[in-house]
Amino acid sequence: MEPRINVITLAVEDLTRSMAFYRDGLGLHTEGLIGTEFKGDETAPDGTIVTFVLEDGLFLALYPRSELAKDAGVPLAPARPGAFSVGHAVARREQVDAVMARAEAAGASVTDPPHDRPWGIYSGYFLDPDGHLWEILWNPALDVGTS
Amino acid sequence: MEPRINVITLAVEDLTRSMAFYRDGLGLHTEGLIGTEFKGDETAPDGTIVTFVLEDGLFLALYPRSELAKDAGVPLAPARPGAFSVGHAVARREQVDAVMARAEAAGASVTDPPHDRPWGIYSGYFLDPDGHLWEILWNPALDVGTS
Repeated sequence: MEPRINVITLAVEDLTRSMAFYRDGLGLHTEGLIGTEFKGDETAPDGTIVTFVLEDGLFLALYPRSELAKDAGVPLAPARPGAFSVGHAVARREQVDAVMARAEAAGASVTDPPHDRPWGIYSGYFLDPDGHLWEILWNPALDVGTS
Repeated sequence: MEPRINVITLAVEDLTRSMAFYRDGLGLHTEGLIGTEFKGDETAPDGTIVTFVLEDGLFLALYPRSELAKDAGVPLAPARPGAFSVGHAVARREQVDAVMARAEAAGASVTDPPHDRPWGIYSGYFLDPDGHLWEILWNPALDVGTS
């Protein structure tokens, strides 16, 4: 397998609520709901999805949990925090606090406020409305955008 | 927040087993266990981690579930498939079958064999040893590496 990830799909309970969190709350750009023409039913997944195009062409997608379960052939079950985390690196230490504050204002639940960690990074964690874990981190050794 | 994801961290039960799956099974390159000098305890997370550098500088990290729970301040609970999926796009249709076969040979559990989906992609899903969902997909509209 080539060393590549193109899409990260987060299963969500309410597509509209989650779209509002990432678009209005965190400020990511999206075209809104797409794929609405692909109607699902009891067994066929619906194709309605929300995507955000990130740097380097990576996609963040939001997809109803029920439809991902059908699309992937896995049981439908509520998520539990802690199965994974998505890491967002910032260019300056104070941006960690700013992004965490913005996420909290948008309704995220902060599980671990920003602090220095033994391995040389400054970071905090929050949960999105569906309990998906994000780590906002500043790593002096990592070169990221400066804007 | 800038539109950027730098790291995807998968919580795993057994770091060595999961490293073998991604390194030996799927062929991704890693330096092996790093951060072993950061010893944890009952409350402090251990820093030992496995990372794979992917295209465009994205990192895939493997981190013990117990340590992620401590690091992020969330309860320790087993994962359930279906909370998210990681999408790996390939350049040609037949590569979907090849990657799926390779994953299965490496011990992955195929939940949905490759087939055409209504929205114009050909894809299949598998679960890694910890139940993390991957979708291997060919999307004619998406330009990805051709090797």
